[in-house]
Amino acid sequence: MKYVAYVDVQLKQSILDPQGEAVRSALVQMGYGGVQKVRIGKRIRVDLEAANEAECRRIMDEICSQILANPTMETYEYEIKEESGK
Amino acid sequence: MKYVAYVDVQLKQSILDPQGEAVRSALVQMGYGGVQKVRIGKRIRVDLEAANEAECRRIMDEICSQILANPTMETYEYEIKEESGK
Repeated sequence: MKYVAYVDVQLKQSILDPQGEAVRSALVQMGYGGVQKVRIGKRIRVDLEAANEAECRRIMDEICSQILANPTMETYEYEIKEESGK
Repeated sequence: MKYVAYVDVQLKQSILDPQGEAVRSALVQMGYGGVQKVRIGKRIRVDLEAANEAECRRIMDEICSQILANPTMETYEYEIKEESGK
């Protein structure tokens, strides 16, 4: 079966996000004074083949914790969709 | 009113994603042969104050097209949530 997984990787709340802070500061200077906080994370799309959804989840758990996210500094969550047809 | 906007910024389909391709290649070499494609985008959380939801959407449209995404190479979409309480 073909699946598509969408992974969101975010810095933990306790970790500073200098990139997000730079964007926030730039936006405020551009006149968007209402912007109070910006946090920048990753959204990763993975197309993969697996025998079934349980297998797909097992693979995604491994991939996320080993490669896509750094568990020391980041959290991740993902959703899986079965790709229809072909 | 306080709002939280979640912005997804993705490379357009026609644009190569060398970072995603590098991750895909690494995963295949690590034994995850089922992984067929990886595309890496950004997910940005913006906390902002605006008079109402229409104003919030106007600000987010401007911010996304001017700063958060490069419209030549990237597409974006966002969802807005009203923050309850405080």
